[in-house]
Amino acid sequence: MTIPEATIRRLSIYLRCLRHSLASGEEMVLSSHIANRCGISSSLVRKDLSYFGEFGIKGRGYKTKELIAAIEKIIGIHNRTKVIIVGAGNLGRALLKHLDEIPYFDVVAAFDKNEEKCGIEIDGIKVFHISRLSEVIKETRPDVAVLAIPPEGLQDMVDELSSLGVKGVLSFALSSVRIPRGIELSFVEIASEIEYLIYKINRRGGTKK
Amino acid sequence: MTIPEATIRRLSIYLRCLRHSLASGEEMVLSSHIANRCGISSSLVRKDLSYFGEFGIKGRGYKTKELIAAIEKIIGIHNRTKVIIVGAGNLGRALLKHLDEIPYFDVVAAFDKNEEKCGIEIDGIKVFHISRLSEVIKETRPDVAVLAIPPEGLQDMVDELSSLGVKGVLSFALSSVRIPRGIELSFVEIASEIEYLIYKINRRGGTKK
Repeated sequence: MTIPEATIRRLSIYLRCLRHSLASGEEMVLSSHIANRCGISSSLVRKDLSYFGEFGIKGRGYKTKELIAAIEKIIGIHNRTKVIIVGAGNLGRALLKHLDEIPYFDVVAAFDKNEEKCGIEIDGIKVFHISRLSEVIKETRPDVAVLAIPPEGLQDMVDELSSLGVKGVLSFALSSVRIPRGIELSFVEIASEIEYLIYKINRRGGTKK
Repeated sequence: MTIPEATIRRLSIYLRCLRHSLASGEEMVLSSHIANRCGISSSLVRKDLSYFGEFGIKGRGYKTKELIAAIEKIIGIHNRTKVIIVGAGNLGRALLKHLDEIPYFDVVAAFDKNEEKCGIEIDGIKVFHISRLSEVIKETRPDVAVLAIPPEGLQDMVDELSSLGVKGVLSFALSSVRIPRGIELSFVEIASEIEYLIYKINRRGGTKK
């Protein structure tokens, strides 16, 4: 069964809401609560969860802990996800701090090619020179690498990470890349997000000028 | 005609590639060039562009300048897009620098509620105290607000921006929000992007542990 990409993305959002509910002592949650907290309609929440069988108890909702465990199993999160950050410029450092604040991510190391940015710790996370990538990856075995590097360096970095056994790469630089076998690559394109917003505004005839 | 969201998002990526081609003096581009540069298949590039009529000349490709103008018209970009950043912490400052480097975005102001972060300039862009939001928005008339604030403050900020006539909001904090009429709100959820990568890796049976 192929589950729509949008459903998987929403599951990840539900997970964040559910962990919040559990931390607040809510042992049962209704789909309407999940919906409210995530800003998604109740019917869509129920539809998304229905892909994975019956979790809920009619009228009483879902057991929070069980639903969390079920979604984690679907996504494939077994432990804290180990992340490395490549590029310790402004964006890289901001991403490091952002991800390190999320309890189920574990930023294990950061890298930069600029010697001046290396050897320091940011929020307790070491910044290594990029020449030590192989050694540190072998030690820390990260699940995912987050790249905040210029687009020119993207292909070489993806190739190197792939050869070192990293399976997932999230890049903040957009560039044409031959994707090596065995690696999943996603892009976060902030500029495209903004342009898509502008498109939606204009389609509603909503320009204010 | 409803154009798929994915197509619009790719148009924005083509635009970035095409501007690069134009800057390098390429007056004509083939769909295969766009495809290579963007890391998207030629057939998908042609399919995306076909939604908007015939731009190309058989065998010779597209006039770069005309294609740029056509895509800009579709998205609704008439000038440089004016952006404000709310929240001048690590992420906000990184976003400011990132967007300000893109030639067709114009970051006009940043805001923070912490007095200590205000009154300074970052890359020539002033950071104002949040109490001056209304005044500065009236002066600068931004198209889009990018929010790098904690989730607790999201609803109030969206309401305020809406009342000040801002039509588009891109939030890096995920939280349930009642969306006021007349505003488009998108989220960039870095944690969800990483979890979606993990899902794709696991579906291939690709965990290395």
